[in-house]
Amino acid sequence: MDIGTLGGIVVGLALIFWGIVSGGAGIGSYIDPPSIIIVIGGTFAASFVAIPIGNILGIGKVFGKAMNNSNDNAGEIIKKIIELANVARREGLLALEEAVTAIQDDFLKKGVMLIVDGTDPELVKSILETEMAYIDGRHTGGRKMFDALGALAPAFGMIGTLIGLVAMLQNLSDPKAIGPSMSVALLTTFYGSLLANLIFIPVSMKLAVKSEQELLTKEIMVEGLLSIQAGENPRIIEEKLKAFLSPTIRKTLTTDNAGAGESNE
Amino acid sequence: MDIGTLGGIVVGLALIFWGIVSGGAGIGSYIDPPSIIIVIGGTFAASFVAIPIGNILGIGKVFGKAMNNSNDNAGEIIKKIIELANVARREGLLALEEAVTAIQDDFLKKGVMLIVDGTDPELVKSILETEMAYIDGRHTGGRKMFDALGALAPAFGMIGTLIGLVAMLQNLSDPKAIGPSMSVALLTTFYGSLLANLIFIPVSMKLAVKSEQELLTKEIMVEGLLSIQAGENPRIIEEKLKAFLSPTIRKTLTTDNAGAGESNE
Amino acid sequence: MDIGTLGGIVVGLALIFWGIVSGGAGIGSYIDPPSIIIVIGGTFAASFVAIPIGNILGIGKVFGKAMNNSNDNAGEIIKKIIELANVARREGLLALEEAVTAIQDDFLKKGVMLIVDGTDPELVKSILETEMAYIDGRHTGGRKMFDALGALAPAFGMIGTLIGLVAMLQNLSDPKAIGPSMSVALLTTFYGSLLANLIFIPVSMKLAVKSEQELLTKEIMVEGLLSIQAGENPRIIEEKLKAFLSPTIRKTLTTDNAGAGESNE
Amino acid sequence: MDIGTLGGIVVGLALIFWGIVSGGAGIGSYIDPPSIIIVIGGTFAASFVAIPIGNILGIGKVFGKAMNNSNDNAGEIIKKIIELANVARREGLLALEEAVTAIQDDFLKKGVMLIVDGTDPELVKSILETEMAYIDGRHTGGRKMFDALGALAPAFGMIGTLIGLVAMLQNLSDPKAIGPSMSVALLTTFYGSLLANLIFIPVSMKLAVKSEQELLTKEIMVEGLLSIQAGENPRIIEEKLKAFLSPTIRKTLTTDNAGAGESNE
Amino acid sequence: MDIGTLGGIVVGLALIFWGIVSGGAGIGSYIDPPSIIIVIGGTFAASFVAIPIGNILGIGKVFGKAMNNSNDNAGEIIKKIIELANVARREGLLALEEAVTAIQDDFLKKGVMLIVDGTDPELVKSILETEMAYIDGRHTGGRKMFDALGALAPAFGMIGTLIGLVAMLQNLSDPKAIGPSMSVALLTTFYGSLLANLIFIPVSMKLAVKSEQELLTKEIMVEGLLSIQAGENPRIIEEKLKAFLSPTIRKTLTTDNAGAGESNE
Repeated sequence: MDIGTLGGIVVGLALIFWGIVSGGAGIGSYIDPPSIIIVIGGTFAASFVAIPIGNILGIGKVFGKAMNNSNDNAGEIIKKIIELANVARREGLLALEEAVTAIQDDFLKKGVMLIVDGTDPELVKSILETEMAYIDGRHTGGRKMFDALGALAPAFGMIGTLIGLVAMLQNLSDPKAIGPSMSVALLTTFYGSLLANLIFIPVSMKLAVKSEQELLTKEIMVEGLLSIQAGENPRIIEEKLKAFLSPTIRKTLTTDNAGAGESNE
Repeated sequence: MDIGTLGGIVVGLALIFWGIVSGGAGIGSYIDPPSIIIVIGGTFAASFVAIPIGNILGIGKVFGKAMNNSNDNAGEIIKKIIELANVARREGLLALEEAVTAIQDDFLKKGVMLIVDGTDPELVKSILETEMAYIDGRHTGGRKMFDALGALAPAFGMIGTLIGLVAMLQNLSDPKAIGPSMSVALLTTFYGSLLANLIFIPVSMKLAVKSEQELLTKEIMVEGLLSIQAGENPRIIEEKLKAFLSPTIRKTLTTDNAGAGESNE
Repeated sequence: MDIGTLGGIVVGLALIFWGIVSGGAGIGSYIDPPSIIIVIGGTFAASFVAIPIGNILGIGKVFGKAMNNSNDNAGEIIKKIIELANVARREGLLALEEAVTAIQDDFLKKGVMLIVDGTDPELVKSILETEMAYIDGRHTGGRKMFDALGALAPAFGMIGTLIGLVAMLQNLSDPKAIGPSMSVALLTTFYGSLLANLIFIPVSMKLAVKSEQELLTKEIMVEGLLSIQAGENPRIIEEKLKAFLSPTIRKTLTTDNAGAGESNE
Repeated sequence: MDIGTLGGIVVGLALIFWGIVSGGAGIGSYIDPPSIIIVIGGTFAASFVAIPIGNILGIGKVFGKAMNNSNDNAGEIIKKIIELANVARREGLLALEEAVTAIQDDFLKKGVMLIVDGTDPELVKSILETEMAYIDGRHTGGRKMFDALGALAPAFGMIGTLIGLVAMLQNLSDPKAIGPSMSVALLTTFYGSLLANLIFIPVSMKLAVKSEQELLTKEIMVEGLLSIQAGENPRIIEEKLKAFLSPTIRKTLTTDNAGAGESNE
Repeated sequence: MDIGTLGGIVVGLALIFWGIVSGGAGIGSYIDPPSIIIVIGGTFAASFVAIPIGNILGIGKVFGKAMNNSNDNAGEIIKKIIELANVARREGLLALEEAVTAIQDDFLKKGVMLIVDGTDPELVKSILETEMAYIDGRHTGGRKMFDALGALAPAFGMIGTLIGLVAMLQNLSDPKAIGPSMSVALLTTFYGSLLANLIFIPVSMKLAVKSEQELLTKEIMVEGLLSIQAGENPRIIEEKLKAFLSPTIRKTLTTDNAGAGESNE
């Protein structure tokens, strides 16, 4: 699990709570149910205008994605592909059929099965790239949902503050009420900013990083699968795929694979 | 119908109404006809400067698009194309002519007729892609109209507030009038923000999602039509087109098509 | 003439005027010559820094472009090209020389003359596309000028307001002067916003739409000219070019051309 | 010299000066050395963080570029290339060696020398395009420097205002000091806005236009040089290159070159 | 070391410090530990939501990158490549193996080793370009981290100010407390702006420039390595690579290499 996502939100809220308490006005001054309803309700109402209902209902799943570490370990994937390349080299492409059952990643499994079926390399490439484009589109969709929420929440915060200010200005006769009224008016802006900057915008950023990582491993898989199908030397495949890795990860991989690498020829 | 678009606007307005009433100043303080005229009138006057009249007159149609669920169901389209592919395989491309009448989608119909006419594959591709580019351009045009309104409404809200503030500041002698005057001045900003963030900006976002979905189904159609024309195996076409779908939709499709899939050979 | 551009500006100004009058402070409170000079003068001084003098002097011409309806009617252009294609088919490419005199559009005329001269198709394409890229560049230049003005006007509005606020704050001793001083200070922001949001930004948007339309018709011409040169069937050319049109326009065209279409073979 | 750049800045400053004087508070109220130091000092300190020292030291040269008219006259360049094309046609590519000495533009000179050396056309193209990409990169670098200053100056203006406001709020006991203190606090925002909107941002815009013009003439040169090397007819080269020009410039060129054009064959 | 990065931050802070002291309110008024904790703590909490933990832990390394001068001197790299090209010309590609040990740059070393191993040119290109794309991605990742911090710091500054304002407004009964309370409330906005505009945003800009420089030298290496492998003439390679340099650097290089250049043939 990616403890940063949930941990950051919890720590951020705790800090804000501490800041409020140390400010001396009491936490009660910062909680105003109508203000909460206007900001959260307004933001979600507008997001139903902005986003198809089906996508909004899947927002929990998208958020979950930002909380989970991706299972994709590029190093592991490369090892797996080198193994498959060795099998294919020694026993032919058809021998990969047995290896398929040991593969957990659906995308890699599908690719291997296409190869086993003797699908034309051009078609394999086109099918896998269409799927990657689709995955990218789906991720972008999820990210845009959080971007929309991150833009709408401060806007409804400001709308709430305007509602409060108008009410306050209509009723300036009681000077004692001005302070509290204005303080309540500012709360919606506070809620909107906090929601946007602690949750919606950062989650969208996290989703972008995770999506990029996932697509990188998919790209490694496509490159590897096409090389296997072309019957390339496992050592050259390894060299090619390792260019996708950072030098640090690459080094750990080299030590591990030394034996496997030598036995390839 | 996409109840989210209209529903979101209605619920959002209801929430704002509730927020106003619970604020205690009375709904009357929030309704100022001159302010409404300045914001809405100014926004539309500026949008006539920004957008050709013909396009503005079609704004209702564009808004309607954001309220309707697209008829394009990618799964249905793929089924239809596989059917056509089977017909073409068994009885030749000319046999598609009869099938044309059963096709509701104009784009798909046109594509099939081009194939039946024996049009060169390159030309089929070029005609259909030009049409897709045109559709994309038309959608972008509609979306930009809402983007423009979403940018102009808050601007005219602020212009209205400046007009109100200048009037108020010229007349500070009566302290009792300051509050109500300023409150009225703020109303235009309130109207502008609400129009932009509850209607114009979210509708533009919804139009973007719908346009993307429509173009995706069109892309599936082009891919499928070209494969049919190339005489590809219906099963391979199915494999290719299913890469465009999400895994969830793909699974429901697999069960349905199992029989059809087998009978393809 | 595109009455939207000028009409929108006039109606917008009338609405603002009405809003001011109905605000009760009198139109005189909203007119301050020094403020007008600072905003308009500052904006234009900065735009001379930003834009080459030659381009600024041509701003009237660019604005005029936003006020005129383009003469380019895609439907008319397609009809014309089909006519030319029929001539070329029946009487050979050289016969187009006579038809040239009846063409009003310079771009189309040039293209036909290149074909008549027997220029290599690749060269025809390259010359026409270079010209289109140049036209696009010229349009973008005009649009950027209005974008610059639209960004600079509110900035100089704010600079003027800061000048006014500093003057006012230096002289708080007379409480009666505060209101009017601040009101005058706000006027520059009012002028800057109005200029930007009623004129500069919307005109830039209109220019963008018109440029797109013009380039679309140019694209149709290039496509058509190359097809004529390649000796393609007029009916196929028609089919190809009509993909550029919206379904509504396309239908009107079909009825009109029915006769011409049939006589092509 | 491009008098717009310096002239616009001078006129802009004069207008601001006039606005200040006509505001009645005296120019002295607008000059506060500590505020000037915070805004200019802070902006430049941050720009040393943002931009490599070498680039900042060259800022005068970049600014000079915005003050000079480019020497590149597209019409002149085309004439020159047609001359070279005529020489090459009549006397062979080697005869261009003598003509080189009369060429002032380094880029064109280099291109001609590559042709004289008998360099492979592909290589000539690749070398010249790499150089163009490099020039573009260098221009972008200079422009980004002004963009950075244009973003940092208002930010440090606001930081200065916050410093002033905090000082003022700590010392509210003397009501007479409030006005002047706040007025001084606003000065940094005034300085930051003025620097950004009268100098930094407009200069960046001017640099962008000049860079585009320079790259356009370079593009004409590459196109022309490759055509000369390919031994194309000077008249066709002229036709090709004139597509880069605006119709107005093109016409003046046609009259001038009429004689030269005819003597080409 | 790039003294601009650290020097700019130090000088910027010193200027701010001087501005505060010269403002007369005392540095103590500008230091409020709870405000510091809310801004820095909130920004980092949100950045843990936005950025994977592994990347955040590497932030020191990324910042260090902005403080170091890159070792890549394009002129030196070109000299080195010309040397290698001369070796390869005289003694064959295999002779490069000995030269490898003298190369410090990992990327260049890897490229030479691929050539020595007789790897297919297409594969060499693909491996090196994949690595460049990866390096670019890694740099972008580091830069986005500072972009995120630069966006979040002002946001949490504003959130802190809202917290302070609400507390102040709840407690307007003591007029003497209003000034100091509001002054403390503004401090968080001050901290957020300073962090963003003196550190986060400028560091991101510096990282962008450095990344571009590094990728330019890598591009030169790839171009040079492929030319060596293709057995091109060292003088032509030099000509090609020098197009990547600015005229100033190019001239110094020409003088230096004059001897080497002549001995190439």
